[in-house]
Amino acid sequence: MLLLRRCHRLNPFGPLSIDRNQVAPVVASCAVRLCSSSNDQRFHQHGFSASWRHVLAGLLAGTGAVLAYGLHHHKAIEKSSRLPIISQEEVTRHRSLKDGVWVTYKGGVYDITEFVSMHPGGEKIMMAAGGAIEPFWSLYAVHNQEHVLDILSGYKVGELNAEDLKKQYTFKSSDPYSSDPERHPVLHANSLKPFTAEPPPEILSDSYITPTAFFFKRNHLPVPQVDPDSYRLHVEGLPKGVLTLSLEELKTRFPKHTITATLQCAGNRRSEMNKAKQVKGLNWGVGAIGNATWSGAKLRDVLLAAGYGPDVAQWARHVQFEGLDKEITGSAYGASIPINKAVSEEGDVLLAYEMNGEDIPADHGFPIRVVVPGVVGARSVKWLGKIVVSAEESSSHWQQKDYKGFSPGIDWDTVDYKSAPAIQELPVQSAITTPSEGSVIDRSEEMLTVKGYAWSGGGREVIRVDVSLDGGKTWNVAKLKSSDKEGDQTSPPLGRAWAWKLWEIMVPLPPEAQELELICKAVDNSYNTQPDTFGPIWNVRGLLGNAWHRVKVKINEDDDEE
Amino acid sequence: MLLLRRCHRLNPFGPLSIDRNQVAPVVASCAVRLCSSSNDQRFHQHGFSASWRHVLAGLLAGTGAVLAYGLHHHKAIEKSSRLPIISQEEVTRHRSLKDGVWVTYKGGVYDITEFVSMHPGGEKIMMAAGGAIEPFWSLYAVHNQEHVLDILSGYKVGELNAEDLKKQYTFKSSDPYSSDPERHPVLHANSLKPFTAEPPPEILSDSYITPTAFFFKRNHLPVPQVDPDSYRLHVEGLPKGVLTLSLEELKTRFPKHTITATLQCAGNRRSEMNKAKQVKGLNWGVGAIGNATWSGAKLRDVLLAAGYGPDVAQWARHVQFEGLDKEITGSAYGASIPINKAVSEEGDVLLAYEMNGEDIPADHGFPIRVVVPGVVGARSVKWLGKIVVSAEESSSHWQQKDYKGFSPGIDWDTVDYKSAPAIQELPVQSAITTPSEGSVIDRSEEMLTVKGYAWSGGGREVIRVDVSLDGGKTWNVAKLKSSDKEGDQTSPPLGRAWAWKLWEIMVPLPPEAQELELICKAVDNSYNTQPDTFGPIWNVRGLLGNAWHRVKVKINEDDDEE
Repeated sequence: MLLLRRCHRLNPFGPLSIDRNQVAPVVASCAVRLCSSSNDQRFHQHGFSASWRHVLAGLLAGTGAVLAYGLHHHKAIEKSSRLPIISQEEVTRHRSLKDGVWVTYKGGVYDITEFVSMHPGGEKIMMAAGGAIEPFWSLYAVHNQEHVLDILSGYKVGELNAEDLKKQYTFKSSDPYSSDPERHPVLHANSLKPFTAEPPPEILSDSYITPTAFFFKRNHLPVPQVDPDSYRLHVEGLPKGVLTLSLEELKTRFPKHTITATLQCAGNRRSEMNKAKQVKGLNWGVGAIGNATWSGAKLRDVLLAAGYGPDVAQWARHVQFEGLDKEITGSAYGASIPINKAVSEEGDVLLAYEMNGEDIPADHGFPIRVVVPGVVGARSVKWLGKIVVSAEESSSHWQQKDYKGFSPGIDWDTVDYKSAPAIQELPVQSAITTPSEGSVIDRSEEMLTVKGYAWSGGGREVIRVDVSLDGGKTWNVAKLKSSDKEGDQTSPPLGRAWAWKLWEIMVPLPPEAQELELICKAVDNSYNTQPDTFGPIWNVRGLLGNAWHRVKVKINEDDDEE
Repeated sequence: MLLLRRCHRLNPFGPLSIDRNQVAPVVASCAVRLCSSSNDQRFHQHGFSASWRHVLAGLLAGTGAVLAYGLHHHKAIEKSSRLPIISQEEVTRHRSLKDGVWVTYKGGVYDITEFVSMHPGGEKIMMAAGGAIEPFWSLYAVHNQEHVLDILSGYKVGELNAEDLKKQYTFKSSDPYSSDPERHPVLHANSLKPFTAEPPPEILSDSYITPTAFFFKRNHLPVPQVDPDSYRLHVEGLPKGVLTLSLEELKTRFPKHTITATLQCAGNRRSEMNKAKQVKGLNWGVGAIGNATWSGAKLRDVLLAAGYGPDVAQWARHVQFEGLDKEITGSAYGASIPINKAVSEEGDVLLAYEMNGEDIPADHGFPIRVVVPGVVGARSVKWLGKIVVSAEESSSHWQQKDYKGFSPGIDWDTVDYKSAPAIQELPVQSAITTPSEGSVIDRSEEMLTVKGYAWSGGGREVIRVDVSLDGGKTWNVAKLKSSDKEGDQTSPPLGRAWAWKLWEIMVPLPPEAQELELICKAVDNSYNTQPDTFGPIWNVRGLLGNAWHRVKVKINEDDDEE
């Protein structure tokens, strides 16, 4: 049954008619071949059941994909050049089967509408609609083959406007946000100015390292244009006076360290907290979190070079960071972290100039962002301009009057920002990334795969994720992944678990159920766990939403294809 | 109304008749004087309401107590000596008004049955019944006055058996537990052999430092008899060979450090988890936790003296501890902690020889116990005999097959001890110590005071305790105390909050409610919080019970004394 469904995706006689290319009969024959396997009752008889069939189906679907791709090979050669110039705006308008599905690749524009139903990866291809396909191909490495490029070339309909290609380097003076970089349209924007956006949840669990283009963005102000040659970082507050470093000096004077660390916005999952009672703030889903590799100088090394020592330790309590992103009043984004996190050998705070092996992009803090692993994203200041060693916390709005947690009994009339500490380490967290809320599962699938992420602040390692299918009555233990390598369960050094774990569980569909309430909850190595419900952790700013994640799915019994 | 009630305690015409002393008429007149204050309507008129009346009542009750005590002064002089010798067993039989209420004080036995109804501290005096009064008097310092001793002497009925006074030094060979020390009878024993016991919850919130006699005891084996002169501690596994230290050397070769730290048994609150589903294990209430000052050498200093250095850091991962308490097979109690906790400047692990300023008593590890602050009590090994620096965890039963947490879906048939890490840091915790479950509150009290403790593992400071009176619908913020000093809200250094906070809240009784479901939940500075319910954190060993603490109380509307 599952195989039949997979084949169905390759079947050209679906709702989309394919008239442009001539592969239909061959694909259909492939589909028939694949489907015949599903009539082989040995799988059932030998108890291999659904999980084995999944594996086989994957292999077969892969073969089908290669066949399907192969048939497109000829078309590439036939295509002519002299195609129209198309704007990004025009491309972005094509994001549905109705309007057409366009993507860009290295300056070319491609209308892949007709390919959608043939895509071996299924409907995931729709996430690329209206934007660049490159980040998806880096995520799904199966595409890195010559014949895939050949197939794509068959759908070319134009060339992307040169201006749009370089858009991040242009500048329009009227709107402080006009120089913000282009973003991938798959991101769901919660606000445009400043730009804040998250990826679809299912992307998060497809790759241990979140591709840069899909990493959530939470800007507080317009993205500053920073010239890397004239960029200077100022380190203040130490007895030697101000230390000024160019980007080159930061890269060459200090050893380069690389860590893999998850950053999470304190507002992640606010949309769920809003259901308990509406709060002000961006309506984040579960995607305001991402996991990347970050490379740069250790903040500790830079502070030592700037004169930090036992004398300073006597009075210094905080390290303040100031961004180059500024309000109209001229005041910059700012935050601070405790001095012991900043100077600790094992604190791993970086002044990062690379994200996932490349220069940090504009939206993530080019040329330098602080990365404070284990701590709320708001302290990992982007476009870093200044570091100040101080006896005091940052006096910025975001340190003093924003990122703090309060009792559910406190509202805007009674809130006293001085009564709560600025959020630093975050509590244990997890969420289901697939299936999504309201999904319909066919009874014939027999097994249900649930996936998600789990992470905890302060370098505490997630040691277990419990998953329930029945609203929390019974629980199963998910399989944890510390990388994309199958079976990798290596542990980071104690207290330095900066990166999330992905998790997955395959469970039989309960025989009687028509609806399932899926729940996940994580446990970290301090054995802290997530609270059951959002009401009692509700807070006026809608932060720190880490109650159990609940996803309802329906089971479809109507199996007319059996 | 409240004043009337307080006076009532001093009123001799209560259910107990007092014929032995002649103070009744004077106490009665005191009561009348006090009660007249409650007719003074100014408190109501000026809106001072119940909280002011509490303060005043306290002052007046104190005065009444002094008056009452004063009247006993003469009796002391009249008492003769030549009193009978009485055994501890006999004393312990007198623990109720029916059987008589006996206490001991410095070798004397006192029958205070008739004093109970006059005690200014109310029925708390019953907790001392059958045992020594000294630890209560060190807890409630108001008793440290000469006239209180005079009053007590009026009730002397005998001398305690000399043998019982020295019982801890005697030895009976038949039972390995026969040399266990005497314990205060107020402790509620969960098991006798090995001895495990907890104090009544209300004692915990009466003093920031838990008096040693009331500190919970969780022995795993018989208490070993250790001669301090011949005691030797062996430190093994380091390149210099075995370092052997006498008690004297440990005290003189290394600086003495003092910390205030809370220790908690992983099984604390198991009785609540048992209500979700019965588990094996001691049926702890909320009292398997205590807060004490501990003084001793830093483990770090001892390890450095024994040869710990960068070379060892290359391979060492754990520090194992072995107690002098042994099973019949000869194998000792053992545990280990991660090396970075053991050698960290800020880990504050002690080899303690003092508890609350005195030699550590037999039940708590005389002469040396490890104190691992922020970590489950099971790793603070008592009667320490050996320290081993190792690449491996302790292989002891208690490290490998006992103190670990599992999913609620795991039972004794499916448990795999290798799948979970040994518990080290504990999750955030809090409990209500007063009122107790089933208490009846008079409507006339108008205000309800709720008290408790809150603590978190890993040196994370508790930053807030939320209290609900309505089963979690609405929440109030309690006042936190970091010492017994009024208004003390000092914070420990970041990451070194080893001691609990006591908390208290005074809230108006809801006008309509006839029953209240009180709940407390704490938040620490990683913003971790307690889960709502026990079912989903249930685990096969009944450990790590930190769901919200719920206490139901009734409101008594029948106010016939108004």
